[in-house]
Amino acid sequence: MKTNTVEDLLEQGRDARAASRILARLSSNIKNQALLNIAEALETQQDEVLEANEIDHRSAQSDGLSEAMLDRLLLTGDRLLGTAAEVRGVAALPDPIAETMDMTTMSNGLKIGKKRVPLGVIGSIYESRPHVTIDISALCLKSGNACMLRGGKESLRSNTALAKLVRKAIGDAGVPEDAVQFVDNPDRSLVDAMLGMKDHIDLLIPRGGDGLIRFVAENATMPAVTGGIGVCHTYIDRGAELDMAARIVFNAKTQRPSVCNALDTILVHVNAAPACLPRIVEELTAAGVELHCDHRALSILGPQSTGGGESPGGKILPANEEDWGREFLSMTAAVKIVDSLDDALDHIETYGSGHSEAIITEDYSAAMRFLDEVDAAAVFVNASTRFNDGGQFGLGAEVGISTQKFHARGPMGLKELTSYKWVIMGDGQVRE
Amino acid sequence: MKTNTVEDLLEQGRDARAASRILARLSSNIKNQALLNIAEALETQQDEVLEANEIDHRSAQSDGLSEAMLDRLLLTGDRLLGTAAEVRGVAALPDPIAETMDMTTMSNGLKIGKKRVPLGVIGSIYESRPHVTIDISALCLKSGNACMLRGGKESLRSNTALAKLVRKAIGDAGVPEDAVQFVDNPDRSLVDAMLGMKDHIDLLIPRGGDGLIRFVAENATMPAVTGGIGVCHTYIDRGAELDMAARIVFNAKTQRPSVCNALDTILVHVNAAPACLPRIVEELTAAGVELHCDHRALSILGPQSTGGGESPGGKILPANEEDWGREFLSMTAAVKIVDSLDDALDHIETYGSGHSEAIITEDYSAAMRFLDEVDAAAVFVNASTRFNDGGQFGLGAEVGISTQKFHARGPMGLKELTSYKWVIMGDGQVRE
Repeated sequence: MKTNTVEDLLEQGRDARAASRILARLSSNIKNQALLNIAEALETQQDEVLEANEIDHRSAQSDGLSEAMLDRLLLTGDRLLGTAAEVRGVAALPDPIAETMDMTTMSNGLKIGKKRVPLGVIGSIYESRPHVTIDISALCLKSGNACMLRGGKESLRSNTALAKLVRKAIGDAGVPEDAVQFVDNPDRSLVDAMLGMKDHIDLLIPRGGDGLIRFVAENATMPAVTGGIGVCHTYIDRGAELDMAARIVFNAKTQRPSVCNALDTILVHVNAAPACLPRIVEELTAAGVELHCDHRALSILGPQSTGGGESPGGKILPANEEDWGREFLSMTAAVKIVDSLDDALDHIETYGSGHSEAIITEDYSAAMRFLDEVDAAAVFVNASTRFNDGGQFGLGAEVGISTQKFHARGPMGLKELTSYKWVIMGDGQVRE
Repeated sequence: MKTNTVEDLLEQGRDARAASRILARLSSNIKNQALLNIAEALETQQDEVLEANEIDHRSAQSDGLSEAMLDRLLLTGDRLLGTAAEVRGVAALPDPIAETMDMTTMSNGLKIGKKRVPLGVIGSIYESRPHVTIDISALCLKSGNACMLRGGKESLRSNTALAKLVRKAIGDAGVPEDAVQFVDNPDRSLVDAMLGMKDHIDLLIPRGGDGLIRFVAENATMPAVTGGIGVCHTYIDRGAELDMAARIVFNAKTQRPSVCNALDTILVHVNAAPACLPRIVEELTAAGVELHCDHRALSILGPQSTGGGESPGGKILPANEEDWGREFLSMTAAVKIVDSLDDALDHIETYGSGHSEAIITEDYSAAMRFLDEVDAAAVFVNASTRFNDGGQFGLGAEVGISTQKFHARGPMGLKELTSYKWVIMGDGQVRE
């Protein structure tokens, strides 16, 4: 499975398609055995992967990659054990392909229902984390899909070793090795070619930064998952309970600031602000959060608040126009005072990315309006936006979070990697 | 709403988007009143529409359109009453937007569910039938979507009059008139522009022939419904019951031969052919069906069968390679003898279009394998493929039949014009 040319890539696509037809009909037992084999190999055959990763890591160091990037690239024995445990978790999930839905008997006696089927071949283009190679392979196998993976240049050796391990492990379980295709050539022209392979790839999942996701969304000829960009607001209504508001905002911003469902902008109702804003700001800055506040928030916080440049906590700075609609992915948040729920809704409609939005309120009508009117993948009342996650929503696992409305919205788990066909069982019915 | 330039088209797109936000939140009562107003206008204010249609029709006659095309274009008082009755039918269907699905309480007390929401703005590009203007408008309104319609050149005046009637009727019910946008300029450059409006149109539905559907699928920048092309097989297994096989094949081919779910190719197991083929062929040819048979079928039918050129019924001709995988849309079918279920499955995989496929059998294992292994929107055992239809499947109405796996497959009814958002109701939960 050496990918040298576009013709090799197309051949991998054809192999994946052929394997997908077999995979679609394999029993849960065989698919689960393949997953358990992958887990076992990750636990007991780490040497080749760790050696490859060491070369990748050293090369990335000498290329001057940032510490954060280097850490994302790094594999260790423990990290591989963690990944193996996740694969065992996927094996333990129910098989989505076993399901037939909505089977009913029509008045003419026809039994009509929908049988869940895999999408076919899932493509994924991702950046440095080699973990994604295992993650996407496992979720695709469980949902009966073949996959075609193209990882980042920095992790090429690691990914190649992982893909080899996966193919061997699934082959031993009776799953065609061709169900997992890895593009082991980092040439950019192959990415362009992959985006054009709509006859071979049924869905493309980009995993990585803003730039990659936009590039895939704009250039893929097949459906692609648009998502991963979360400009998330938490609106503290005038009817908010102060302790709850402070706790939720603190969690949404600080529990894991680098991810898409972390809080970016705090909107505060003008009547709630005098009581709650100083406390929330104090807690956040004490934890090291930098706050970009509009002038009304600054005037509530008082002139001394912006002088804290010397304090150990986070700074308070005046917000500028670019702070609205900005995904910080760090210990920074914007703060704005609004005059009403309507103003909050307008701000979210204008600046939100349709990912995760929350209101904190004890006012029933405000809560209902927020749930009805905010157009986002996940809309929260009195809870942290950090819950927008496949695991937290009970899906077991996820390949990503979709912010589009077509096919699947929000966390995409195993079922979201499937389609259905109508099955009709008759005993001689004809149409009148 | 005069569409002169691409800039006008973009303005219509913006107007549709703005209207869609209002429409998404309207009560079922208001949407249903809008539909009843449309029906009433079609019943009582026919003059302007019929006059416009007469001009269209006369102009199409002098342009030399075929009788079939002229008939599709023609509106009459009775046809408008029929359309009005269909719109009343849509008003009577349950509102898909009322539904919240899978609401469960997680162990941490969070209530999590999915609320059904409209897709937003639906575009449709269609050919001569002016009926589609009403049909798509009604289904979009009911499902809370705004729409942007571009009909065929031949029916421009009819469609313009119908769109005017619809906008007035919905405006009287309190629905924004801008929820229905009609492109009243037949210039092709505006079609190209429409295909690029992915920020204004969330889903594009082409309605018409093969060429239009392919053009939209290849050039649309937003998701488009791929479908409407049905190369439909009925396989008569060696375990088939003869009377049932004859009845189903006859119905699938002759009940309405011009539509996508009509039978195209009859596959007959070699062991079943001697008993059933002569009878089926006799019944079909007597009804005027022309049959293109492979050489093995011809030899079973005997030399005299191909001499029937003078008889009043349909001819029997030798099949050629182009007959496999051909959508006849007429009183013609291809006939092929196969040696096994596997050969039938291979033929369907090679030549089918993933639309509607049927097996006639009393053999349990053959039925199960056919249901599991055929990759099509609808797979039938012992029933006519003509049942692949939103009405017959209990969806109430349909905008078309999708042969793609993404988002919706098979008949697309009201629910298939929707998405969902996750709604989460908490009482202060934060993520650990």
